[in-house]
Amino acid sequence: MPEHTTPSDAAASELDDPSYRRGVVELLGVLAFGELSAFERLAEDAKLAPTLRDKAHLAEMALVEMQHFVSLRDRLAELGLDPYDAMAPFEATFTRFHLQTAPSDWLEGLVKAYVGDGLAADFYREIAAFLDLETRTLVLEALADSGNSAFVVERVREAIETDPKVAGRLALWGRRLMGEALSQAQVVAAEHDGLTAVLVGGADAPSGMDLASIGRMFTRLTENHAARMAELGLDS
Amino acid sequence: MPEHTTPSDAAASELDDPSYRRGVVELLGVLAFGELSAFERLAEDAKLAPTLRDKAHLAEMALVEMQHFVSLRDRLAELGLDPYDAMAPFEATFTRFHLQTAPSDWLEGLVKAYVGDGLAADFYREIAAFLDLETRTLVLEALADSGNSAFVVERVREAIETDPKVAGRLALWGRRLMGEALSQAQVVAAEHDGLTAVLVGGADAPSGMDLASIGRMFTRLTENHAARMAELGLDS
Repeated sequence: MPEHTTPSDAAASELDDPSYRRGVVELLGVLAFGELSAFERLAEDAKLAPTLRDKAHLAEMALVEMQHFVSLRDRLAELGLDPYDAMAPFEATFTRFHLQTAPSDWLEGLVKAYVGDGLAADFYREIAAFLDLETRTLVLEALADSGNSAFVVERVREAIETDPKVAGRLALWGRRLMGEALSQAQVVAAEHDGLTAVLVGGADAPSGMDLASIGRMFTRLTENHAARMAELGLDS
Repeated sequence: MPEHTTPSDAAASELDDPSYRRGVVELLGVLAFGELSAFERLAEDAKLAPTLRDKAHLAEMALVEMQHFVSLRDRLAELGLDPYDAMAPFEATFTRFHLQTAPSDWLEGLVKAYVGDGLAADFYREIAAFLDLETRTLVLEALADSGNSAFVVERVREAIETDPKVAGRLALWGRRLMGEALSQAQVVAAEHDGLTAVLVGGADAPSGMDLASIGRMFTRLTENHAARMAELGLDS
């Protein structure tokens, strides 16, 4: 485990700003719920694995999500909060997302793991710049790749080689995953002003992104998603 | 992560003994499968959790099992083996055990997590003495408590306080868990000579336990199980 940095004076003063603090708590809450939820789904989808080796790979991705969850939860506790209270408001969103995107087979599960992991990492990278030093360090640590992505790429490409028809179905599936993710992200943004204010800046925090920047961020997220789909051998 | 010790000369020479080596490979195989299987069941049983906090506690126990799995698997690979080939012979045993002991509710899941964790730790401690230094270090590392046992004790005691009838049902459940575990352990011992030879000694490794020692080991395992049940407020 990397050691936590001690709070810098800058971080301490930023967290003294109640508006910033509320936003960061919402952000850590949504990320923590997302990680716990990813752990649950990866563990569930690992059951679909055709071999023990495949199951272990997906379980190892679940392990990495759970490690991130523990860091985020402990950071919320350090800030003097009940982590579970901070996470609770995001339960409905993630439940909806996973209900709408329950994989019907192993390959759909693999694509979901890969696309979801990648999208989360991109989002973490995008928001890191707007955070105080300590929160940023934590968020960037959660970017570390589990080293299991290569295995997903290999398996999906093999499956397409064996049966090229698979590619059309998985391409549709990838679009559905991205569509649901963006739609749930909009719900979260609309319902959680504090979180949005950390990104866009508010009366109290004017240093955030403007609307044009947010548009560009979504363009980058979509482009990276397309690149990941291409890496899997799929149209986006 | 603790660093691996470099192989001692003693370990290298013990592992040169084909009979010892075969036993250790079987042992690492059964432990690795047990950890992966415990991860799966804990992740599954976490779904029964009444609150987010409870779910996170069980998921964190699953995380710890998965970390042990990764160490054991990597050790098998270091020994030049395909870890999944070494694990495969134990699949039927664990599948049977978990089928016979699928918890019907959250409390049964908690008791199973606690009893299973404890029994595994006791067994690891018992066998460590018969292993070469490097394997022993690895096995002893896997003993580290996840720190979530206290939470199980608290939850089960609360449930009994709220409804004392629960205690009878959970006591029966604990006996069933122990009975199934012992019966599966017998199957494993009967089917895997190499593994048994590491413990009891064979023509090539006469330094193991005699039958009286094995009897005493089972007595200790049973006594510790009874102590754990008492800790939960349950008869054994």
